Amino acid sequence: MGDKKDEVIVVGHRNPDTDAITAAMVYADFLRRMGVNAKAYRLGELNNETKFVLKTVDMEAPDMIPDNVPEGTQVALVDHNESQQSMENLKKMRVSHVVDHHKIGDLTTSEPVYLRFEPVGCTATILTKLFRENNLDMDQKTATLLLSAILSDTLHFQSPTTTDDDRKIGEYLQPIAKIDDLKSYVNKLFEAKSDLTGFSTHKVLFLDYKTFQFNNEQWGVGTGETCNVDKMLERKDEFLKEIDEEKKKHNLNGILFSIVDIINQKNLTIISGENEEKVAREAFQADVKDHIADFGSRVSRKKQIVPALEAYFNQKS
Amino acid sequence: MGDKKDEVIVVGHRNPDTDAITAAMVYADFLRRMGVNAKAYRLGELNNETKFVLKTVDMEAPDMIPDNVPEGTQVALVDHNESQQSMENLKKMRVSHVVDHHKIGDLTTSEPVYLRFEPVGCTATILTKLFRENNLDMDQKTATLLLSAILSDTLHFQSPTTTDDDRKIGEYLQPIAKIDDLKSYVNKLFEAKSDLTGFSTHKVLFLDYKTFQFNNEQWGVGTGETCNVDKMLERKDEFLKEIDEEKKKHNLNGILFSIVDIINQKNLTIISGENEEKVAREAFQADVKDHIADFGSRVSRKKQIVPALEAYFNQKS
Repeated sequence: MGDKKDEVIVVGHRNPDTDAITAAMVYADFLRRMGVNAKAYRLGELNNETKFVLKTVDMEAPDMIPDNVPEGTQVALVDHNESQQSMENLKKMRVSHVVDHHKIGDLTTSEPVYLRFEPVGCTATILTKLFRENNLDMDQKTATLLLSAILSDTLHFQSPTTTDDDRKIGEYLQPIAKIDDLKSYVNKLFEAKSDLTGFSTHKVLFLDYKTFQFNNEQWGVGTGETCNVDKMLERKDEFLKEIDEEKKKHNLNGILFSIVDIINQKNLTIISGENEEKVAREAFQADVKDHIADFGSRVSRKKQIVPALEAYFNQKS
Repeated sequence: MGDKKDEVIVVGHRNPDTDAITAAMVYADFLRRMGVNAKAYRLGELNNETKFVLKTVDMEAPDMIPDNVPEGTQVALVDHNESQQSMENLKKMRVSHVVDHHKIGDLTTSEPVYLRFEPVGCTATILTKLFRENNLDMDQKTATLLLSAILSDTLHFQSPTTTDDDRKIGEYLQPIAKIDDLKSYVNKLFEAKSDLTGFSTHKVLFLDYKTFQFNNEQWGVGTGETCNVDKMLERKDEFLKEIDEEKKKHNLNGILFSIVDIINQKNLTIISGENEEKVAREAFQADVKDHIADFGSRVSRKKQIVPALEAYFNQKS
């Protein structure tokens, strides 16, 4: 990479989900078609859902990000913008593009850049708009990547993050992706998402995990989306052990790990310590029993969990 | 305003120029056409160029922002994103939209928002794209507002901030604006810009002035674009006095005030003290004589002055 000075590195967030991986692939393709020398990389292992999607379209995953990316390298961020969710040393890179659907965190640049943020359910919805606005042909594989990401992020248009734009773009993509039976495709996606065979509890905890700064506190918030809640709950003691270790290792004020039932849209959150119990009670009005707090139908970290934490820590300060 | 809880306030930056004012007007119109209850306001007095443009289209300026906008009001920012360039108490408002062509400063939000940043010469270029992407009709007045902003910000496509997109959008807007003789229109714009009759030196200093944080230092950077450099230089001693007062008043590390010759694309910058002299020498390789440093063809604050300051203070830290 050292000699390709003008190459733009395109990355989704750490602990990548389907949206993070497919968005990096599709946006790199978009940039190349706009004349930019772009290449997608990933910041972690694929989950089984993403593997299923890539197998469906018969495409390779992006390469893992190499160590020691040179300072000053041009970087395009997709599906995230906060440095702690991104590559090492992001602050020493030159961020030139961001396409995202999250709140803005600690993003700053020294020069004007391309930013495209919309409060929609999925980065893929925004990427589809970019293709349409620029009159680019979309092939079946690209449409399948994008539609899979939308179905995954919006839990088949059931998550409260879902917007009309996601639904409309989903309808636009479906015939191009040639997925006739959407329900059956979603079932396969969700089963793949729930398939944790061969995954250690440590890995499950970090499959969809992000850290956030709330005022002066550092918190980790993880989500385990599954069709089989009981199977996840069997690992409760192991989760508690992993969570305690992670808190110590990174000096975190707390970690919330939510087991999300993607069929019934319910959230049971694992509560490992006193800080988390206080937050469960005061920010979510949820009692804790046997290290579990019932967060009800709050299935979206972005739309429900993180804003509640942010509001809570802001009024405390 | 207190009872219009869902009204989105649309504002350009303080010390507004033509782009800041017209962008607020046009984006408020765009949002209304997208079903959002939006109203444009301004954060300061109009300059003579903007007055000329509004007279051309026979439109009123946006109202001055009222005092005491309630906390939590929804705000759309155009042509800026840094809180110190924006309305009072921005950090207590709910920023929901930003359309801008500057670097990202201290912008953070607690929820996902609409952001549209492109590294082009003018906010109006991005706004024109928004109209086209959403298939909105554009009338002659709107096209005139947008084209005037582009001509003003890019100094008739001569500034180094000018991109191909600005030129293409300019060509698209010209027939809709029905401005047949562009050169003659630009001359009138530039004459209006240069007309400082009745403007105190204090006002001239702040007509196009922004403050920036570079590491731990606070700097003010002002620009006086003119067809008549000598006339501006006659006020040098008054500028020096005003600059000294402003530095004391706001505890600034320095102020650079650039007199920009918009016909010949040259920059003579007023240097009031030791800090500024050091910066002129070390960041711009410019000698100082009689309180004036020749910054050569660096006519763009955004593309040339601020990045040079940022690079300089970053390597110092």
